[in-house]
Amino acid sequence: MQELVQYVNGEFVPDSEAKVSVWDRALSVGDAVFDTERTFGGKVFRLREHLERLYRTLHMVRIDPGMSIDEMQEVTEELARRNDRMREPNGDYSVTQMISRGSVNSVLEPEQATVVIRMRPIPFTSYARYYDEGAHVVIPTTRRDPVQALDARLKTISRMNLVMAEIEAKQVDPDAYPVLLDIDGNLSENIGGNFFVVTNGVVRTAPARNVLAGVSRMTVLELAGDLEIPTAEEPLTPYDAYNADEAFLTTTSYCALPVGKINGNPLQNEPPGPITKQILAAWSERVGMDIVDQAMSHVN
Amino acid sequence: MQELVQYVNGEFVPDSEAKVSVWDRALSVGDAVFDTERTFGGKVFRLREHLERLYRTLHMVRIDPGMSIDEMQEVTEELARRNDRMREPNGDYSVTQMISRGSVNSVLEPEQATVVIRMRPIPFTSYARYYDEGAHVVIPTTRRDPVQALDARLKTISRMNLVMAEIEAKQVDPDAYPVLLDIDGNLSENIGGNFFVVTNGVVRTAPARNVLAGVSRMTVLELAGDLEIPTAEEPLTPYDAYNADEAFLTTTSYCALPVGKINGNPLQNEPPGPITKQILAAWSERVGMDIVDQAMSHVN
Amino acid sequence: MQELVQYVNGEFVPDSEAKVSVWDRALSVGDAVFDTERTFGGKVFRLREHLERLYRTLHMVRIDPGMSIDEMQEVTEELARRNDRMREPNGDYSVTQMISRGSVNSVLEPEQATVVIRMRPIPFTSYARYYDEGAHVVIPTTRRDPVQALDARLKTISRMNLVMAEIEAKQVDPDAYPVLLDIDGNLSENIGGNFFVVTNGVVRTAPARNVLAGVSRMTVLELAGDLEIPTAEEPLTPYDAYNADEAFLTTTSYCALPVGKINGNPLQNEPPGPITKQILAAWSERVGMDIVDQAMSHVN
Amino acid sequence: MQELVQYVNGEFVPDSEAKVSVWDRALSVGDAVFDTERTFGGKVFRLREHLERLYRTLHMVRIDPGMSIDEMQEVTEELARRNDRMREPNGDYSVTQMISRGSVNSVLEPEQATVVIRMRPIPFTSYARYYDEGAHVVIPTTRRDPVQALDARLKTISRMNLVMAEIEAKQVDPDAYPVLLDIDGNLSENIGGNFFVVTNGVVRTAPARNVLAGVSRMTVLELAGDLEIPTAEEPLTPYDAYNADEAFLTTTSYCALPVGKINGNPLQNEPPGPITKQILAAWSERVGMDIVDQAMSHVN
Amino acid sequence: MQELVQYVNGEFVPDSEAKVSVWDRALSVGDAVFDTERTFGGKVFRLREHLERLYRTLHMVRIDPGMSIDEMQEVTEELARRNDRMREPNGDYSVTQMISRGSVNSVLEPEQATVVIRMRPIPFTSYARYYDEGAHVVIPTTRRDPVQALDARLKTISRMNLVMAEIEAKQVDPDAYPVLLDIDGNLSENIGGNFFVVTNGVVRTAPARNVLAGVSRMTVLELAGDLEIPTAEEPLTPYDAYNADEAFLTTTSYCALPVGKINGNPLQNEPPGPITKQILAAWSERVGMDIVDQAMSHVN
Amino acid sequence: MQELVQYVNGEFVPDSEAKVSVWDRALSVGDAVFDTERTFGGKVFRLREHLERLYRTLHMVRIDPGMSIDEMQEVTEELARRNDRMREPNGDYSVTQMISRGSVNSVLEPEQATVVIRMRPIPFTSYARYYDEGAHVVIPTTRRDPVQALDARLKTISRMNLVMAEIEAKQVDPDAYPVLLDIDGNLSENIGGNFFVVTNGVVRTAPARNVLAGVSRMTVLELAGDLEIPTAEEPLTPYDAYNADEAFLTTTSYCALPVGKINGNPLQNEPPGPITKQILAAWSERVGMDIVDQAMSHVN
Repeated sequence: MQELVQYVNGEFVPDSEAKVSVWDRALSVGDAVFDTERTFGGKVFRLREHLERLYRTLHMVRIDPGMSIDEMQEVTEELARRNDRMREPNGDYSVTQMISRGSVNSVLEPEQATVVIRMRPIPFTSYARYYDEGAHVVIPTTRRDPVQALDARLKTISRMNLVMAEIEAKQVDPDAYPVLLDIDGNLSENIGGNFFVVTNGVVRTAPARNVLAGVSRMTVLELAGDLEIPTAEEPLTPYDAYNADEAFLTTTSYCALPVGKINGNPLQNEPPGPITKQILAAWSERVGMDIVDQAMSHVN
Repeated sequence: MQELVQYVNGEFVPDSEAKVSVWDRALSVGDAVFDTERTFGGKVFRLREHLERLYRTLHMVRIDPGMSIDEMQEVTEELARRNDRMREPNGDYSVTQMISRGSVNSVLEPEQATVVIRMRPIPFTSYARYYDEGAHVVIPTTRRDPVQALDARLKTISRMNLVMAEIEAKQVDPDAYPVLLDIDGNLSENIGGNFFVVTNGVVRTAPARNVLAGVSRMTVLELAGDLEIPTAEEPLTPYDAYNADEAFLTTTSYCALPVGKINGNPLQNEPPGPITKQILAAWSERVGMDIVDQAMSHVN
Repeated sequence: MQELVQYVNGEFVPDSEAKVSVWDRALSVGDAVFDTERTFGGKVFRLREHLERLYRTLHMVRIDPGMSIDEMQEVTEELARRNDRMREPNGDYSVTQMISRGSVNSVLEPEQATVVIRMRPIPFTSYARYYDEGAHVVIPTTRRDPVQALDARLKTISRMNLVMAEIEAKQVDPDAYPVLLDIDGNLSENIGGNFFVVTNGVVRTAPARNVLAGVSRMTVLELAGDLEIPTAEEPLTPYDAYNADEAFLTTTSYCALPVGKINGNPLQNEPPGPITKQILAAWSERVGMDIVDQAMSHVN
Repeated sequence: MQELVQYVNGEFVPDSEAKVSVWDRALSVGDAVFDTERTFGGKVFRLREHLERLYRTLHMVRIDPGMSIDEMQEVTEELARRNDRMREPNGDYSVTQMISRGSVNSVLEPEQATVVIRMRPIPFTSYARYYDEGAHVVIPTTRRDPVQALDARLKTISRMNLVMAEIEAKQVDPDAYPVLLDIDGNLSENIGGNFFVVTNGVVRTAPARNVLAGVSRMTVLELAGDLEIPTAEEPLTPYDAYNADEAFLTTTSYCALPVGKINGNPLQNEPPGPITKQILAAWSERVGMDIVDQAMSHVN
Repeated sequence: MQELVQYVNGEFVPDSEAKVSVWDRALSVGDAVFDTERTFGGKVFRLREHLERLYRTLHMVRIDPGMSIDEMQEVTEELARRNDRMREPNGDYSVTQMISRGSVNSVLEPEQATVVIRMRPIPFTSYARYYDEGAHVVIPTTRRDPVQALDARLKTISRMNLVMAEIEAKQVDPDAYPVLLDIDGNLSENIGGNFFVVTNGVVRTAPARNVLAGVSRMTVLELAGDLEIPTAEEPLTPYDAYNADEAFLTTTSYCALPVGKINGNPLQNEPPGPITKQILAAWSERVGMDIVDQAMSHVN
Repeated sequence: MQELVQYVNGEFVPDSEAKVSVWDRALSVGDAVFDTERTFGGKVFRLREHLERLYRTLHMVRIDPGMSIDEMQEVTEELARRNDRMREPNGDYSVTQMISRGSVNSVLEPEQATVVIRMRPIPFTSYARYYDEGAHVVIPTTRRDPVQALDARLKTISRMNLVMAEIEAKQVDPDAYPVLLDIDGNLSENIGGNFFVVTNGVVRTAPARNVLAGVSRMTVLELAGDLEIPTAEEPLTPYDAYNADEAFLTTTSYCALPVGKINGNPLQNEPPGPITKQILAAWSERVGMDIVDQAMSHVN
C-alpha cells in the first residue's frame, strides 16, 4: 500500500519521512498549537473556521507561523488533493495543522516556526459501535486546567492534563470517555471535544469560557437552531449529567456520539436519544452523506 | 565542526538525523516526560537522582519506557562518553531524557515508548553576566497549573503554561526571568527551576507541594545545611520577594543565579548577596570546578 | 386527641409507633433523601413535581426505594386521606417522604431501602406574624456546601451544614432566618428554602446551579411570569440584599415570606412590599385559599 | 441466638426494640453527632479520648446531651458489660454513641437530646483478607466538604458527602476504599478514617486541619514515635500516593489496613510493607492481642 | 488665577483651605465612600444617578451622611455654579463627593460624617492623544478584591488594591492602563472604570457582579442599544482581550477611550475601531458637544 | 486644657490645625500606609521595629517618604517628648506615622509624600473591663482580603474590608471584637491586631502569611518562649476557637486582651486564663509597669 503524503516545513514528504527534530520546542516544552479537521467524501469540512481559530491561538501565544491564513488553507487543500486518491472506499481523513515555535538546536532564540500538516484515515472502527450502544462517560478526578493557568480556548499540544484524565477514565472502563470537571466542579470537556446533555427537550452545554469553543460544538448549536430545538450554554454539574434524558459527545471525527451511561449509570433514554438522532440526521444532510452509516460500514 | 551524537529509540545517531515522527504522541498531545542534567567537566551530575525522579513521573503517568533505570543510566553515560571528545575547552553539556508514550500512526494503541536522549553545550553566554549584575525577576499574571489539574512534580513536556509566563515576563524586560504565582498567590517556580529568598539570614523557598522538587533545589538545601545556614520550606508571597535581602534562581545549568531586581525594584543587597555567594562557592567545591568562572570564561 | 397515622416501610402506623431502627443508615451516616410538600385544604400541592425531584435525587445517590413513583404518589395520597379527618379547622399538613439506603444491622450490604412518609400540622404560629412584620434575614459565616462536595440539588438529610448556619443566625436574633453564601460569596439558600430580592421591579434569585431548585421557587417564577413581572436567575451578593426594594423567602409551608431586615438593616420598602403582595395574592388564587389569612387565623 | 442490648434515651433495650422516632432531627436534617470505639478482648479502647472528642463536637454544634462525660462513660461501660457475655469467641464489638438534638414532633424547639449507644460485633470478615493482599484505594471525584461549610473535625452524622465518595470508589472496584481529595486537591480521608503513606522511611499523613483528628491516627503517630520512625503531618497529593513505598488506612475497627494499589497501580512494596507491619505489631502489643490474627481467625 | 471653591462639612471654602483633620477615619482606616461626576459645558452629567449609587454604598457601609440625597444634589449644583465662572474656555470639571464616617479625635464613636465635595478641571492632556493612538492595556498580577472581602460595587476610598495594579502596569509601560483580573481569572476593571471588547460586532463587558456598575458603563450599554449594536455582559478572559476586534476603557472623564494594544500586542483593528467611534459619536450627540474635539483642543 | 502637638509635613502644629488637603491621595484612593506604636510611661515601645515594618511596606507600595528611617525615628521621638508634659497621670499615648503618596491637586503626578505623625491618649476605658470579663469575639461573614489582591502584611490605610467586619460584629453585640476568616476559612486577624488560642498548653496563632505580622504578636511569641510555653504558628479554624482552653487578642494598646466568648459561647476557662495571665505578667515586667493595673486605673 502506498504511503500517504504529509507536509513538513514547506515540503510534501512521504509519511515515513515526516519527522521533526528532537530539538523542536514542541518536543522540549510543548510549545506548539494545532487544529484538526476531517473530510467528508474527501472535502475538508469548515476548514476556514478551524484555521481562524488556529490563528487566534497563534496570535495569543505569539507564534508567527510564517504563512498567511490563505496560504495555510491552500497548502491544506493541496495536501488533501494529493492524498485523495489513496482514500479508501467510503473512507475519510482527519487533517491536523501543527505549528511550533521552532527549533532551539542553535542555542539561540527560535527563528522560524515549524509547520506540519498531517493526515490519516479516520479510525471509524474505534467508535462506530457507540452510535448504537452509547458511549460510557466517566467523570475523572483530574480537573481541567483553569483559565488563569492556560486558557482552554488555546488549542495547544500541552495536553497532559487531558491525557491524565483519559487514563483515569479508561482504568474504570477501557471503553470509557472522560468528561473533566473544571476547577469549580462544572462539567467541561475532554481531550477530543465537548459534552452535551438534553434535559426536557433543551440541548445544553458548558459555556465557551471554560472549554475549547469547538467547531463541532458550534455546528450542534447551529443545527439545533435550524431544528427549532432550544439550546443553553450554561454551567452544568454531574447532577445534570446523571439526570439527563440524553447526552452526547462531539468531536471533529465522530461529530456527535450518543452517550448511554454516566459513571456506570444508564441515562433515562436508551441511546441514541431522539434529539441526538435528529442532530445527527441534520448533520448528515448538511454534509451530504450519512455519518453513522459511513462509520458502521467500516465495522467488520 | 563534527556533529554531536544523540540517542533515539535504541540507536546513536548524528544530531541532524535525530528526529521523531510527526505522529508521536509527544507532538500531538504533549504526552511525554523528561528530565535534564548537566555535566561538570564532562561528568553527569547527580544522574541517578534525576533518573529516580524521572521514573517516579513515568510511574504516575503510566508510561513504560521499555528500559530499566539501570539501562537508562548506562545509555546516558555512554552517550556522554561519545560526545565528550567534542566538548569545547572549559565547556560542558546539558543532557535530557525524553520519553513519550509512543506513536499513534498505526491508529492503534501506542505499543512502544519513544526514548530520546539528547545533549547540547550549555549556553553559558545567555546567563553568565547575571552572576555579577543579578537577574531581573518578573512575577507574571499567568498562574502555575494547580496540582488538581497537573501535579507540578510531574516533569512533563506539556509546559505551555510556563512558556506563556516566560513570554509575559520577557515583554516587560527581554532579559527577565518569570517566577509564577500558584493559584493561591504564592510564589512557585518557572520553566527552568526554583526561586529562593534570603530573609534575615534564612534561606527560604516554596514547599515541594506546588513546585517541581528540583535536584538543584535539593542541592541548595543540602549545601545550606552543610554551611549551617538555616533554611525554610514555606509559602512565600511577593511581599517576601520585594523585601528579601537576597534572592536567587536555581536550575540545572546555572546552579544558583543571583537576582538583583523584582518587578523592577532592587533588592536590599547588591547582587550577588553574601549568602548566595557562599552557596555558589560550596557548590563549586562540591563539583570540583568554579561554576561562575566557567560561565564567565565563555563571555569575551 | 387522636394520633396521626404515619407510613413506615409498607405499613400505616400510629405516630407514636412510627420509628426507625438505630441501625438505619440514615442515623449512622445521613444516607437518606427526602422531599416535603404541604396540603392546601387537605390536598397535597404539586405532589408529582416533588416526587419527580425526589426520584432524580434517588437516581443520583443510587438508592432504589423499591417503589415506583406512581406507588409513592398513591401511598402519599392514601396517607393524606387517612389523616384528613384529624385536620384542624382551617389547618393543613406538611408531608415528608424520607427514603434511606436501609439498615446495616445485618453487617451486610443494605438490602432494602427504608421508606417513611410522615405528616404533621403546619406550624402556622411560628411564622404567621412575619407576613406583616417581615422576617429578619441574617447572612451567617458558614458557607453552603459546594457542588463538588455535595450537590445542593440533592435533597439529602445530611444537612448539618444548614443547621449550623441556622444556629449562627439565631444567635444574632432568635427570630432570624439565615441565608447562606456559597463558597464564592454569592447568596444561596437556607435549610428551608430559597431567597428572592426585588430590584427596580425585577424579581431576582440565585441560579439553580448552587441551590435546591425548589418547587416554591419555581412557583414564584411561574406566578411572576403570569403577572408579567420580569424575573432573573443570576448571582446575587449581599450588596443586592442590602439595596433591595423588597425581599422574600420561599418554602413549602409559608410559600413566600416577606423580609423586613437584612443583618439588622431595614429594606427600602416596609414589608410586605407591593410585588411580594402580588405574588402571595396570585399564589392564594392558584390554590383557592388565602395563604396569609390561613396562617393569621392560627394566631390569637 | 440472644439479642444484644442497646441503650436508648436512658434505657437498656433489646436490639430489635432500639428505635428512634421518625420525627427525630437526626432523621429529618442529620442534626446529630457520634463517636465510635471498639473493644479489644471486650474492653473499650481509649474510650475517654473518644468521648472527649465527642464532647468537643457537641460543644461546637451546641447540643446539650443532658449527661456529663462521666455519665456517658459509665453508661457505655455498663452497656459493654451487659453485652460481653454474648461476645463470640475471639470476637469484639464496635460501640457508637449517637446524640441528636432531639425530636421535633411537638412542633416546638427540641427540648431534650436523643442519646443512643449501640454495639455490634466487628465485621472482621469484611476486611481481614486485606491485611495480606492490601486494600485498593481509589481517589474519587467527589471532594471532601471544606472547613468553611462543615468542619471535618466535627464528627456529625451528615456524611452523605463521604457516602457518595464511597459509591464512586466501589463502582471502579467493589472492594475499593475511597480517599477523598480536599477542595484544594490534597489527600484527606474517607468515611471510615485516615490515610497514611510511607516515603523514604517517613510515615506521613494529612494535617489535622482538613480531616477528622482520628484517635487511630493519633495512635499511629504515637506508636511511630515509640518505634523512632519519623512522622510528618503535611499536605499530600496523589503524587505522594502513587509514589509511596507503603500506604495504609486507619480506622477504629481494623486499626491499620495495608494498601496494595492506588487507582489500580501497585505500590513499590508488596503489602503489607515493613513499616506498616511494625505499626501493627506495636499496636497489637499495646492492646495485648494480635490484631491481624484475630481478624484472620474469623475468615472461614 | 483665582482659587476654586470646595465644600467641606457645610461650608464653601477656597481650595487651599479645603482640608480634613488627620484624625478623620478616612485617613486612619479608609472608612469613606465617594462618587465622581464630570460636567459637560459646565453642567453635571447624570448627577442624580451617581448620587443614587453613592447612597446605596452609604446604606451598605452604614454611614449616615447627615444630608438627604436632594440636599446633596443641591449643594453639588451650587458648588458647580460657584466654580463655573472660573471654568477655562472649552474646559470642564470633575466633581467628587467624599463622605467619611467622621473624626475619631474625641476618642469616642464618630458622631458626624465628614462631607467633602471637590471639583477640579478635567486633565484632558493626560489622555487626549489616546483617542487617536489607542491606549495600552496591561493585565497586572494583582487581582481585584473579591466580593466576599469587599464588594466591587461599593465605591469606597480603600483602593490600594487598584493602586498597586496601576503601579504594576506603569512599570511595564509608563503610559499603560491596567485591567485587573478577578480572583477567578476574569477581566474586571481598573481604578478608573470599566473595560469593553468588541468581538464580531458585539460590545461585551464583564457582568456587574464583580465590577463597579459604572454610570459610564451603563451609558455605553444604553447608547449601543440605541445604535442597535448587540451587547453582552458576560465573563471575559485575556483570550477575549487578545483576540478582540476593538476594545475601549470607560470612565467619567474620558467617557470611552480606544485601546490599541493588550500587553504589547496590537488588536485586529487600528484604534479607534469603527464601533468605538460610533459610541463616542452618539455620546457626543447626547451631551451636545464633541467629546474627542474638546479633549484634543487642550493639547498644545 | 492644652492641645497636643502633631507633626504634619515637616512642622509641629497644634492638634486643631493638623490637617490634610482634600486632594491628598490618602483621601481619594486610600493610597497611604501607616504604623502605630504606644508609649509605656511616655517611652515609645519597640519604635524601631515598627518603623522597619513601615519601611518594608513603603518599599513594596513604592512610596518614598522623603525621610530616612533614622529621621523618622528622631521626629517621632521629638514629638513624643513635646507631648509628654501633657500626659495624664498614669496615662500613655498611641503614636501613628501615616505616609501617603502625596497630593494630586496639581493634576500632575504626586511629587512629594505626605508625612503625618499623630498622638493621642490611649483610650483605656474602652477596653479595661475586658481584662476581667473577657472580650467577646465574633467571626463575621466578611472575609479578609486575600494576599493576591492586597497582602495582609502591607499596613495600608485601605482598611474598609476590616471596617465592614467590625460593623458586622458590633451588630451582633456592640461590645464584640471581630476575628475575620481568610478566604480559605482560616482564622486570621481584625482591624486592631492578632488572635491567639491556647490548646492543651500550647499558644497558637495564624501563620504570618495571611495576617499582619504584628509586633505585639511577635512579643507574645518571644514572651512565651521565655516562659517555656510551647507555641505554634499554624492554620486555625473556628473549631480551634470554640474548643480553646483560653484565647486572647493582641494589639499595640492593650497588648493581650483575654477572650471570654466566641460567637456567644463561653470558652473552657473563665477569663483571664492562666497562660494569658502569665503572658500579661511577663509583658508588664518587660515594660516595667503593670499593664492591666494601668488600664484599670482609668475606669471611674
